[in-house]
Amino acid sequence: MKFSEIVQKLAIHLPDSPVVSMGEDPEITGVAAVEEATVGSLSYIEGRKFADRIAVTAGTALILPMNPQLQQQASDRGIAWVATEEPRLLFAHAIALFYQPFRLPAGIHPSASIHPDATLGENLAIGAFVSIANGVKIANNVCIHANVTLYPHAEIGEGTVLHANCTIHERTRIGKRCTIHCGAVIGSEGFGFVPSRSGWVKMEQSGYTVLEDGVEVGCNSNIDRPAVGETRIGENTKIDNLVQIGHGCKIGKNCALAAQVGLAGGVQLGNNVILAGQVGVNNQVKVGDGVIATAKTGIHTDIAAGAVISGFPAIPNRLWLKTVALSYRLPEIYQSLKQLQRLLGSKSN
Amino acid sequence: MKFSEIVQKLAIHLPDSPVVSMGEDPEITGVAAVEEATVGSLSYIEGRKFADRIAVTAGTALILPMNPQLQQQASDRGIAWVATEEPRLLFAHAIALFYQPFRLPAGIHPSASIHPDATLGENLAIGAFVSIANGVKIANNVCIHANVTLYPHAEIGEGTVLHANCTIHERTRIGKRCTIHCGAVIGSEGFGFVPSRSGWVKMEQSGYTVLEDGVEVGCNSNIDRPAVGETRIGENTKIDNLVQIGHGCKIGKNCALAAQVGLAGGVQLGNNVILAGQVGVNNQVKVGDGVIATAKTGIHTDIAAGAVISGFPAIPNRLWLKTVALSYRLPEIYQSLKQLQRLLGSKSN
Amino acid sequence: MKFSEIVQKLAIHLPDSPVVSMGEDPEITGVAAVEEATVGSLSYIEGRKFADRIAVTAGTALILPMNPQLQQQASDRGIAWVATEEPRLLFAHAIALFYQPFRLPAGIHPSASIHPDATLGENLAIGAFVSIANGVKIANNVCIHANVTLYPHAEIGEGTVLHANCTIHERTRIGKRCTIHCGAVIGSEGFGFVPSRSGWVKMEQSGYTVLEDGVEVGCNSNIDRPAVGETRIGENTKIDNLVQIGHGCKIGKNCALAAQVGLAGGVQLGNNVILAGQVGVNNQVKVGDGVIATAKTGIHTDIAAGAVISGFPAIPNRLWLKTVALSYRLPEIYQSLKQLQRLLGSKSN
Repeated sequence: MKFSEIVQKLAIHLPDSPVVSMGEDPEITGVAAVEEATVGSLSYIEGRKFADRIAVTAGTALILPMNPQLQQQASDRGIAWVATEEPRLLFAHAIALFYQPFRLPAGIHPSASIHPDATLGENLAIGAFVSIANGVKIANNVCIHANVTLYPHAEIGEGTVLHANCTIHERTRIGKRCTIHCGAVIGSEGFGFVPSRSGWVKMEQSGYTVLEDGVEVGCNSNIDRPAVGETRIGENTKIDNLVQIGHGCKIGKNCALAAQVGLAGGVQLGNNVILAGQVGVNNQVKVGDGVIATAKTGIHTDIAAGAVISGFPAIPNRLWLKTVALSYRLPEIYQSLKQLQRLLGSKSN
Repeated sequence: MKFSEIVQKLAIHLPDSPVVSMGEDPEITGVAAVEEATVGSLSYIEGRKFADRIAVTAGTALILPMNPQLQQQASDRGIAWVATEEPRLLFAHAIALFYQPFRLPAGIHPSASIHPDATLGENLAIGAFVSIANGVKIANNVCIHANVTLYPHAEIGEGTVLHANCTIHERTRIGKRCTIHCGAVIGSEGFGFVPSRSGWVKMEQSGYTVLEDGVEVGCNSNIDRPAVGETRIGENTKIDNLVQIGHGCKIGKNCALAAQVGLAGGVQLGNNVILAGQVGVNNQVKVGDGVIATAKTGIHTDIAAGAVISGFPAIPNRLWLKTVALSYRLPEIYQSLKQLQRLLGSKSN
Repeated sequence: MKFSEIVQKLAIHLPDSPVVSMGEDPEITGVAAVEEATVGSLSYIEGRKFADRIAVTAGTALILPMNPQLQQQASDRGIAWVATEEPRLLFAHAIALFYQPFRLPAGIHPSASIHPDATLGENLAIGAFVSIANGVKIANNVCIHANVTLYPHAEIGEGTVLHANCTIHERTRIGKRCTIHCGAVIGSEGFGFVPSRSGWVKMEQSGYTVLEDGVEVGCNSNIDRPAVGETRIGENTKIDNLVQIGHGCKIGKNCALAAQVGLAGGVQLGNNVILAGQVGVNNQVKVGDGVIATAKTGIHTDIAAGAVISGFPAIPNRLWLKTVALSYRLPEIYQSLKQLQRLLGSKSN
């Protein structure tokens, strides 16, 4: 594809008069990271701190930030480029010009086990050894990879993809254009055990789980259903691998939960919440809109909207950075204190 | 079901003369959380701090604590109620009156692959694409959902349920009335590699894993087998999702391990131990009966019975609460120290 | 097997003149942990601190360290023994004399679904309900357990074992003699979402994942593929259960990653890196050769080769031990400080 054609196809994401240098309008054969680019590659540079990579890249074209100096550098090396406020975002769109993720071809594999009471939409792609129970409803254009299991009365919305070896439990409702990655389990029983004199009594989990449209759930992640009521994941929320969402959680829209995050039961997240890797949130805690928690944060109490938090228990990120730095100077602080005590002791005598 | 009938069915969990207000003995159609209750719902209130929910619930009946004031409040609103020392526990029993979890109907799905040397009990429910190897023994009334794999000589006790896509490794012995949730792997090889001059040497894991009766293992959790001997999970111990139990661990009875807990090799837990989410326990550590570790605790050394611990490395919870609070005041402590130094320095001169 | 025969078979791992006491050259029937040994058992003792176990073991033979005192103790009890610099390593070799892990017998199960375009080597063992897509290449002597799914163009090297319910994504390349444990997912889509005014934009993950020879991946672990380029796991690196490896990570050779470790995107580990349980590594961080991170360490910045680190953010282990010990004395430190302030305040007056 000619570079000019790429720019044209990306035009919808560019201003009316894009800042662009066609060079000799080279043929672009693929996308690559700038440090791995070869002849024919389109890459991107996020900002000035990667400037030195322009000097050495073997690639043919670049997506650049709105920085005349970087642009001049690229032009000087004969590299075609297009500039944007958000190079990484444009690169995401560029990848989609060259690559479509694998989807099963339409059709139902003869080995699939589909209960006669299931309701199937049109243009489905259902792989080998898929097990679909009674009462399941599958909308149009759904793709279900091999070895997936759907329990009774699960509902799968239009255009959703279920990857291999995942399980959708009974009464779960998954929206449109969702992606459930391999091994994920949606709508499983919450961890509901009540202590009693004769040991743990199981509280049956009679509720269900809802994923709104555009939700993505990573590999081997779990979203439990509650004893009563529902667990709900808001529209376009993205969940990474190995994440645990406890029974009865209500997650807002457009959140992003990184790998190995764990939410205990009844947690409420607002919209646009970002939890970095290995963050944990305690039972029943409410986290406001737009909160960002850095990696390994432990959230014990409700957090106001917009906060950036760290540490365990979580405190404002800025305070945490200070306290951690000082905690690592505790040997020195302790020495100073001892010295003062000696000094003051000797003075007292 | 009439409210009186519910009270009657729950009588076994109530004193001989239950404290109850039948009101007009309303028809109860289901259970719900008190804030989501509608006409016909039975809900529960755990204690006084939820008193305001009685004032607004749209539900028809309540399980209440032994608190005359809350009871009066409910009566004033025309809500039928029954009181107990443990409302949540009674609610667990009430849910079971209205809801039974889905179990496969008895019968063996024609697609299941069962080795002729396997020994099968009676009244089994075996789903599609279940693979059962040679020497496997399955007792009566076992339910095995779709896409489960059983390696050779695994043994499954009476009434146990294996959910979809889980794997039971060779020689694993699972007791009666256990539940293994989706994607869990029981009896897998421990992480046994010995450093040598020529790199890691694999120590074959010739041992096996035993789950005693009534054990529950969450989705995508792993219980490894050891190089020699056994890994053992005691009776009625409950394990949540995404938990790692290393090779050779011995877990006592009635423990509860929350999501994303990780036990390294050879850990020993006593009875009634509770580990909250994301707790980690080091190699060979012994944790006494009744220990409670709060979320994210890192346990490095043996812990005496009955301790409540937090932090990393773990210390008594009370001390941890104090030290964390003070660590967050380190900037202020540091300032005070500097001030003292200046003051003393100027005095010294 | 006679003890003399065992010593002979282990000779390759021993010096030319092994230090050995045959006793009455007893018959050895199996291997066991020293505290669980019975008549006929071969066990090992790692060092002097386990000396008391020699006094009580019911076993018949021991692997001992190069310690004359321990050797005398064993001889006194009539226990046959062989001594080595590395008892645990020799025990690993000894286990392999008595135990071979279960492998499927050669042959392709009739239920397996194999695309006609797949390329199959010789002497394969392929279990029930295995799904193999178009373009997949499987070398000789590969063993694929039940319910495994291979996406298009995955390549599996000679002698590799794929355990039940795992998934190998499109274009993944797995080397020779690798082991992928149950439920693991290799080559899944990286968590690539770019924020935009209209919410998260998915960056398609057009790259692939490579596992070099001799890699082992634990149960329910995930290794993502990147947007462009590759994720690579170096030769003989061993990865435990429930580990997350983000898109574009480059892991060196002979590393060991314990359970529940999480690497964010673009992390680079050198060779011989050891990460203990629940360690997390931030985006794009570079960790040098031979680094050891203790449990729960959070690595935020690049780490120089050879460092032993702990804490969050990670600092040298020795400093961390000091600072943690002092942080737990903060109540006392704070009291001292207050006392000094009072003292100095009164003196000032």
